[in-house]
Amino acid sequence: MIYFDNSATTRPSPKVAEVLSRELLSDELYGNPGSIHKLGTKASRSYDAALKKAADLLHCGADELYFTSCGTENTNTVIEGYLSRNRRAGKTVITTGTEHKATLETVKRAETLYGSKTVYIKTLPDGTPDLEELENSIDDDTAMLCFTHVNNESGAILPLEKIVAIRDRKNRNTKIFLDCVQSLGKLPIDLSGMKTDMASFSGHKIHSVKGTGLMYIRKGINIDPLIVGGGQQKGMRSGTQSLFLADAFVTALEEAVNDRKEAYERVEKINLFLREELVKRKAVINSPADALPFVLNVAFDGFESETMLHALESFDICVSTVSACSSKTKAVSYVLLEMGIPRKTAANSVRLSFSKFNTMEEAEKFIETVDKIYELYALK
Amino acid sequence: MIYFDNSATTRPSPKVAEVLSRELLSDELYGNPGSIHKLGTKASRSYDAALKKAADLLHCGADELYFTSCGTENTNTVIEGYLSRNRRAGKTVITTGTEHKATLETVKRAETLYGSKTVYIKTLPDGTPDLEELENSIDDDTAMLCFTHVNNESGAILPLEKIVAIRDRKNRNTKIFLDCVQSLGKLPIDLSGMKTDMASFSGHKIHSVKGTGLMYIRKGINIDPLIVGGGQQKGMRSGTQSLFLADAFVTALEEAVNDRKEAYERVEKINLFLREELVKRKAVINSPADALPFVLNVAFDGFESETMLHALESFDICVSTVSACSSKTKAVSYVLLEMGIPRKTAANSVRLSFSKFNTMEEAEKFIETVDKIYELYALK
Repeated sequence: MIYFDNSATTRPSPKVAEVLSRELLSDELYGNPGSIHKLGTKASRSYDAALKKAADLLHCGADELYFTSCGTENTNTVIEGYLSRNRRAGKTVITTGTEHKATLETVKRAETLYGSKTVYIKTLPDGTPDLEELENSIDDDTAMLCFTHVNNESGAILPLEKIVAIRDRKNRNTKIFLDCVQSLGKLPIDLSGMKTDMASFSGHKIHSVKGTGLMYIRKGINIDPLIVGGGQQKGMRSGTQSLFLADAFVTALEEAVNDRKEAYERVEKINLFLREELVKRKAVINSPADALPFVLNVAFDGFESETMLHALESFDICVSTVSACSSKTKAVSYVLLEMGIPRKTAANSVRLSFSKFNTMEEAEKFIETVDKIYELYALK
Repeated sequence: MIYFDNSATTRPSPKVAEVLSRELLSDELYGNPGSIHKLGTKASRSYDAALKKAADLLHCGADELYFTSCGTENTNTVIEGYLSRNRRAGKTVITTGTEHKATLETVKRAETLYGSKTVYIKTLPDGTPDLEELENSIDDDTAMLCFTHVNNESGAILPLEKIVAIRDRKNRNTKIFLDCVQSLGKLPIDLSGMKTDMASFSGHKIHSVKGTGLMYIRKGINIDPLIVGGGQQKGMRSGTQSLFLADAFVTALEEAVNDRKEAYERVEKINLFLREELVKRKAVINSPADALPFVLNVAFDGFESETMLHALESFDICVSTVSACSSKTKAVSYVLLEMGIPRKTAANSVRLSFSKFNTMEEAEKFIETVDKIYELYALK
């Protein structure tokens, strides 16, 4: 099995499996961090240690991080929570049409809930937002910018520094929410230096288990919680804290940060090899030239996305058509269309996405398989 | 270590540990259920199978259940989601002052968000709501009744059938939300016969891991989702579905349902033994006589709650003062005060809560320890 669908989800790493298997049997770690007896205290201290480790790895304060259930929960929380709490910060939310559905659906709902207005900045052919349009759009009424650090379908990298500079120039009160779900473990994440105000991270994209998220809210920014109740996590995310899932996240995070450079180099080689070989075969590379190498979006002329996906699948190779969050609707990728890629090309596109566990041998096998598929279909 | 704090959280069962440890290493189960390749399909089918098994065990349809992150998320979702979606169903929410904080905080917030009005029915000394007051309070404007099936601090069992009858008599359109977090695995749960409209279940109270919940919404009832995005789970709970956590929940659920009768009998004996022995020692039993035996709330005259908790802890016995969700605030139990228990007694109360893994030997050891503590403190 060759798994080239790591932007959809990843396999738990051996280390994550080992840590969790051990924790499941532990006599000491199953307490409720809210309990004041020694089992509770032990759980609470371990939970705080997990938060502290996450904070150190991401270069922020432990009091700026909250464990959650997933990236989607994070996105709902920070966008709605900021608009709900800061009614006088402005009515405008600026984003693009290429964001993840979690952002697109949340900003849409916020229009009804909080009377906000969404401005969708045009996406350029390289997958990044039109900065001139952004510059012209930010004004005194702009509450938030919601952008994704790395696009999950194209791999396009957000020009974050330029965006921060524009924000600082136009309206310093405008807050930036950065969806880092696809960049974590792939680009350096230094929250102290990035000048973003809120950020979202997901465990299952970095070889943790599904159902683990981490949310960053810069100190001094107040937002309303999405989930209320017992007041856990300083009232920002009620619900019994799961040390098990916190450890699942942080174990994967530590590996992701430590392995990042090596993983990047390895995947870059795979990506360059594939680009070169695929172009020779008349495939169209949709991902911009300077995209993150972990994502390679490519169109195979004459093959509809699903046809190629299932052809590859018959050779035990997993890729995706569009984002897994949209794939059941069988639509053509809205991300590619927003980038200005012709509908016909978009309809023939598949996304390969890699992890540190992929190998060059798999890439070579992939190319051999593409050749086989071309042959098989040419015979038909 | 004697763990008598199972209403706060439970230890993962050996079976849950085994299933999860295996799944962490599986070659086949890590796909994203939203992906259309074979790994995704395998994950999606397994996820559906988990839902189906949960539905069979709870006697409802699989299309009436949704996996979530916890009981608190469920409570937020169904109360806010119902009020948001059904603006013409009425403005009144009826509940009691002894509900879990997840309910109390959500109904409070709903007043601001949806202009709802909360009516708090008096709690009787036996921990159940005053049904006469309920009968007088339900009118055409009553959108929802929000009650807990078994109170987490007193063990009081809700007279559900009587409440359903009152609802049916007064306003058939009023919906009932039942918090079943403490009753699951302890009382029979037959959603087809219970005539409740929405219900909440939590995995970590039935020996699953923390971070797993299940939400029931009767077919035909429309609510707005709390978390929007990729539209997973029929749009009712966006975010990548976690087969891992679904299996964690359902494995524990199956055990809980299968072991229920035997667990009840075992715990009932422990409870009766402790009541008898504690009364001999002049302790005051706060739990009503007909409470669920899994919870035993008891006041030790002359010992403040925390003093007794830490005294027991020094003998490796874990109990709690108030609910773990409130314990860090060091307040006297609001549940006991609502029941009319004098503040002095409430301030001396601790909660013992049992699981199927507790033994009569532990109960005997507990009584011996109480005697030792009385002696030690008498000497001081």
